[in-house]
Amino acid sequence: MKISVLRIGHRPLRDKRVTTHVALVARAFGADEIILTEEDDAIEESVTDVTKRWGGSFSITTVSGWKSFLEAWKGVAVHLTMYGLPVDDAVGEVKKSLDDSKDLLIVVGGEKVPGDLFRLSDFNVSVGNQPHSEVSALAIFLDRFFNGKELLVDFNGEMRIIPSERSKNVKRL
Amino acid sequence: MKISVLRIGHRPLRDKRVTTHVALVARAFGADEIILTEEDDAIEESVTDVTKRWGGSFSITTVSGWKSFLEAWKGVAVHLTMYGLPVDDAVGEVKKSLDDSKDLLIVVGGEKVPGDLFRLSDFNVSVGNQPHSEVSALAIFLDRFFNGKELLVDFNGEMRIIPSERSKNVKRL
Repeated sequence: MKISVLRIGHRPLRDKRVTTHVALVARAFGADEIILTEEDDAIEESVTDVTKRWGGSFSITTVSGWKSFLEAWKGVAVHLTMYGLPVDDAVGEVKKSLDDSKDLLIVVGGEKVPGDLFRLSDFNVSVGNQPHSEVSALAIFLDRFFNGKELLVDFNGEMRIIPSERSKNVKRL
Repeated sequence: MKISVLRIGHRPLRDKRVTTHVALVARAFGADEIILTEEDDAIEESVTDVTKRWGGSFSITTVSGWKSFLEAWKGVAVHLTMYGLPVDDAVGEVKKSLDDSKDLLIVVGGEKVPGDLFRLSDFNVSVGNQPHSEVSALAIFLDRFFNGKELLVDFNGEMRIIPSERSKNVKRL
């Protein structure tokens, strides 16, 4: 099973840093790729650079038009939204709906998301019902999906942190 | 016990949206206030507006100089950093070190944090050892701290979401 994150509603100037954070969370919490709907060289570069140094095989791609992409998606699509069903109830259902042949797409939007998205997604899932952030929503969803085990994965990168009580301890291979 | 979040290293132009997300996560995941080290009217306004509409009693303040603030802090200070000790090991220790008379300060930085911060904090805690985001690190730390119960809190606001499978359902009081 592959896990992809589709980031919609990215506004190039305003959202550059937030979208970069979404991409880094996707990678750090166990997704395999992020898909943007607007080409953005700066984000691509920074994500590719992190993967090169810190390991794993995360990729970043751009598609034109989230809607046609989502309509053509063969796997299960989960839209993270503050209006959806509670993550702790939904995550079991999402897992049940996946089998070895189905990939998972997680769709995260910004402040305003098109109404169609609710209809085209298989699940609309909320991480709490208070406004916060697509960055935190994605992290908590993936954390629930992997039962916290995603934090223990060895990315086997050139750079590796030795957890420390008082300092920065980085090993470079 | 009060929980405060101190956001350091905010660069007004570049980090406006990320810092807003940090503040919204602090509120939505159970902290009582966020403290900035640079006055920022836009962030204050947007956080105050969210609290007014969505409920709870979250506040936002500015202090001048994180270092003197942290040195004067009487409670327990937790610095979230990718270099620290694993959150799942640390969170129990943090709880043990708190008692009814002690407040908790959670310090979140940006990309580069001053080395002093590691020494001045009681705990340096990592949410995984991969680069991601202060937004997700804060969400996961608070989620572990409250055992996921923070997502169930009723904020008793003017606006309230009725979780829904397929649509936006908001009740206005």
